[in-house]
Amino acid sequence: MDVTAKPPGGDCKAVGEILSRVGDKWSIQIVVALRSGPRRFNEIKRRVGGISQQMLTRTLKTLERDGMVERTVRPSTPPQVDYTLTPLGHSLSETVHQLAEWAAAHRGNIEDNRLRYDGRQV
Amino acid sequence: MDVTAKPPGGDCKAVGEILSRVGDKWSIQIVVALRSGPRRFNEIKRRVGGISQQMLTRTLKTLERDGMVERTVRPSTPPQVDYTLTPLGHSLSETVHQLAEWAAAHRGNIEDNRLRYDGRQV
Repeated sequence: MDVTAKPPGGDCKAVGEILSRVGDKWSIQIVVALRSGPRRFNEIKRRVGGISQQMLTRTLKTLERDGMVERTVRPSTPPQVDYTLTPLGHSLSETVHQLAEWAAAHRGNIEDNRLRYDGRQV
Repeated sequence: MDVTAKPPGGDCKAVGEILSRVGDKWSIQIVVALRSGPRRFNEIKRRVGGISQQMLTRTLKTLERDGMVERTVRPSTPPQVDYTLTPLGHSLSETVHQLAEWAAAHRGNIEDNRLRYDGRQV
């Protein structure tokens, strides 16, 4: 992809693949939910409206694999699992937070645009 | 989704849906390609490494429908079609550009993390 100049062939695909994951709507919302500190699974699920348990498990695993999220088991009774942003996750979080804010702020505008566009297609 | 406070139920889904589209790897790269001004279809295709003609057509149509991109037919001979970012598209473009730069800058780091993670799972 062309960020500043002609794309080096192999990089495009790798960067595109990363974008698929960091730009994924659930990843974005999970990263935003973790900005303010460690959270337990159910707290994240409550904050990210509409995500299923399975999708949350899967996305957290992907974020952990990419090094964006850390999973810590607290040696309490019973043991408790916290999820936290790593420094890499934090470096991403400001940008995805802005993206999320943009989407929330322009939702109405976008919906109006679609109605107008669809009206023209008839 | 929880951007600043408890999510209003209906909004989450709509915002999530917008995020799916603006966070889509092809949308991101097309918006970045159009930051510097109007471009023709084939110019965009060249700049966005790896995108197929069909995917580019489809994504441009989605961006147009959302009001992020404008399609103009120049009355030349033969007629020529330009794609441009609308003001809405421009308002998004700085954020997605940062996301794209982040992905390019951290690609190596992420790949190393995955190797480490996968190594631990064996």
